[in-house]
Amino acid sequence: MEPGGVSVSAVLPAGGSGERLGGATPKQFCAVQGRPLVSYAVRAMERISWISDIIVVVSPENIETMKTIIEKYGHKRVTVVEGGITRHRSIFNGLKVFAEKEFSSYLLQKPEVVIVHDAVRPFVEEDILSKVVMAAKEHGAAGAIRPLVSTVIASAADGCLDHSLERARYRASEMPQAFLFDIIYEAYQQCTDYDLDYGTECLHLALKYCKINAKLVEGTADLWKVTYKRDLYAAESIIKDNLSQEVCVITDANETVAQVGFLLPESLKSQIKVEAVSISQSRNDSHLQSIFSGQCYNFVCVNDKKCAIQETQQLVHMLEKSDIPLLYPVVLISVYLDISGNNSFSIGMEELTSIKKFARETKKKNILVYGLLIQYK
Amino acid sequence: MEPGGVSVSAVLPAGGSGERLGGATPKQFCAVQGRPLVSYAVRAMERISWISDIIVVVSPENIETMKTIIEKYGHKRVTVVEGGITRHRSIFNGLKVFAEKEFSSYLLQKPEVVIVHDAVRPFVEEDILSKVVMAAKEHGAAGAIRPLVSTVIASAADGCLDHSLERARYRASEMPQAFLFDIIYEAYQQCTDYDLDYGTECLHLALKYCKINAKLVEGTADLWKVTYKRDLYAAESIIKDNLSQEVCVITDANETVAQVGFLLPESLKSQIKVEAVSISQSRNDSHLQSIFSGQCYNFVCVNDKKCAIQETQQLVHMLEKSDIPLLYPVVLISVYLDISGNNSFSIGMEELTSIKKFARETKKKNILVYGLLIQYK
Repeated sequence: MEPGGVSVSAVLPAGGSGERLGGATPKQFCAVQGRPLVSYAVRAMERISWISDIIVVVSPENIETMKTIIEKYGHKRVTVVEGGITRHRSIFNGLKVFAEKEFSSYLLQKPEVVIVHDAVRPFVEEDILSKVVMAAKEHGAAGAIRPLVSTVIASAADGCLDHSLERARYRASEMPQAFLFDIIYEAYQQCTDYDLDYGTECLHLALKYCKINAKLVEGTADLWKVTYKRDLYAAESIIKDNLSQEVCVITDANETVAQVGFLLPESLKSQIKVEAVSISQSRNDSHLQSIFSGQCYNFVCVNDKKCAIQETQQLVHMLEKSDIPLLYPVVLISVYLDISGNNSFSIGMEELTSIKKFARETKKKNILVYGLLIQYK
Repeated sequence: MEPGGVSVSAVLPAGGSGERLGGATPKQFCAVQGRPLVSYAVRAMERISWISDIIVVVSPENIETMKTIIEKYGHKRVTVVEGGITRHRSIFNGLKVFAEKEFSSYLLQKPEVVIVHDAVRPFVEEDILSKVVMAAKEHGAAGAIRPLVSTVIASAADGCLDHSLERARYRASEMPQAFLFDIIYEAYQQCTDYDLDYGTECLHLALKYCKINAKLVEGTADLWKVTYKRDLYAAESIIKDNLSQEVCVITDANETVAQVGFLLPESLKSQIKVEAVSISQSRNDSHLQSIFSGQCYNFVCVNDKKCAIQETQQLVHMLEKSDIPLLYPVVLISVYLDISGNNSFSIGMEELTSIKKFARETKKKNILVYGLLIQYK
């Protein structure tokens, strides 16, 4: 998947005013499941190890907001740059960081290939990023495309139909796009004020000023751009859906506990994808590691009471080391199955108190720990 | 708003297979808040008094499903017609119902203007329907348009960019569209098999075969087409949002009750738009009538216990006569404020039993009645 032997950085224009959204807050700063949209797009870049630097270009009045977001969500490898009054001017400013002395306070290593992606497209996957980067290395420029949803028409001066385009011959140009850095930078240096003020399409600049016919790469439906309020609703639902698709049930080897560890997945599996793991495997186990690198955000850990807190701490430690809690909150329900027959509440309460204290710490790391005590005879 | 002196009917093609949605159920039959999408589009037409007939064109295997939907949701003025294998063939079949003898079993009155609208665009308002109808009467054809969200590009045979279109010169062609019936019917009769099999744009047929340059009418953002799963999510959220925007609190003239009727709106108004109405006004009151013709789907009726059930029945009767429960469920919470100081539960329970029985009936009419007994000292 990694595009071999090529240095890559990314520029994310995030300077739009969001007037089509009908709200005061630009859409890239609107909260989706409590987190600003731009943070999702940054994370989508950040979790890809072969992208070196991420340049987020925002309008002057939002620089502090953006810096606060980076601080709050622990984003790394991100440089905030002041944008221009149009999209093209903002992208150009983002590119200058790699090339011009006037930005020497943070002159970064010039990449061979630069990705341009929108702050309002939160769901970009490694696969399409890798494809546009490899295509850009070969062709000089590349961009994701999608089929048109509606017919495109040209209107005459009188507000009547002039002609309609044959839908099958055209595509919607989406993001991400990628360019050999020298190509797109050359194109921006040569282009006119009219291009900078009224243009919107980077592929067009590469064609017009560098004679590069960009390679077009079919993207997936999730590349769409958050434009209207309904798109925010959709993004919210997609994220909720992603988070609730899978649960992993982890149990220890004790016979009774193992029985619960068998019955729980059985009763859950009609509603949700369930992975069951025995605790003897849970230390450096490849099965658990593969779950950690997948799309699972929900964990139930069933223990007999004696070793519950240690087991929970160990799991949290493994989750922390994984990428999972970087993007979305992880839920870990730690179930203490007390099979001692000793009904003293005070012992169980003590355990719950320490898990409560522990949960307060892990919350900061985006891991939500819940303790549940079951006295089982 | 009503386009004067013109007879209007509508054709809704609903024969798509929904392959872009990635599910087995065609999107027009997918449930949104428990109701199939096509039912929303039909309601959107049906609630407009000046639209005479609504032709829903579905593929042969879905005719029974569609008839069940019409039955279940009490749709009126709807004729179900068997579609062809493409969009254009389906629309043509829909139009034939008004014109050809072979369909004489249900030959309907030929309208002067016919609206074409998609079954997967649930949020069309009277305003835009009226505008396209009036424009069609004047120009022969008219259609709603929206600005392009993405740049449109043409690709060359090698999968590379050929050229990109200047975004400002083009528009997305959306629905609804409207035509003088004779124009669009003439166009369909003349057009080739290639048009019928590969074309998608009715405005194009009117131009090509009848030399009619359709009037283009700027539509609102809510005209978008449900194409992908994310659009179903968005539709669901938009409906929920609409339903929870306003509550109407109705109280009787009793002093204590009136006090509650004052305090409840006060405490609610920070979260939701609240209308407060006194019960002395509630019979044929113009204020209440204006609420009934608006966007309010939630009612709280606070009574002292003696006349509670009658008051509730009267309100339900008024709601039934209005258009409100046709499209969305209406919630009516009937609160009995028992200020007698008599704490006998049996009396209150009797009232609640009769409201429960009443609620079972009203549910069929899409009015959800809940009873709440508060003993107040």
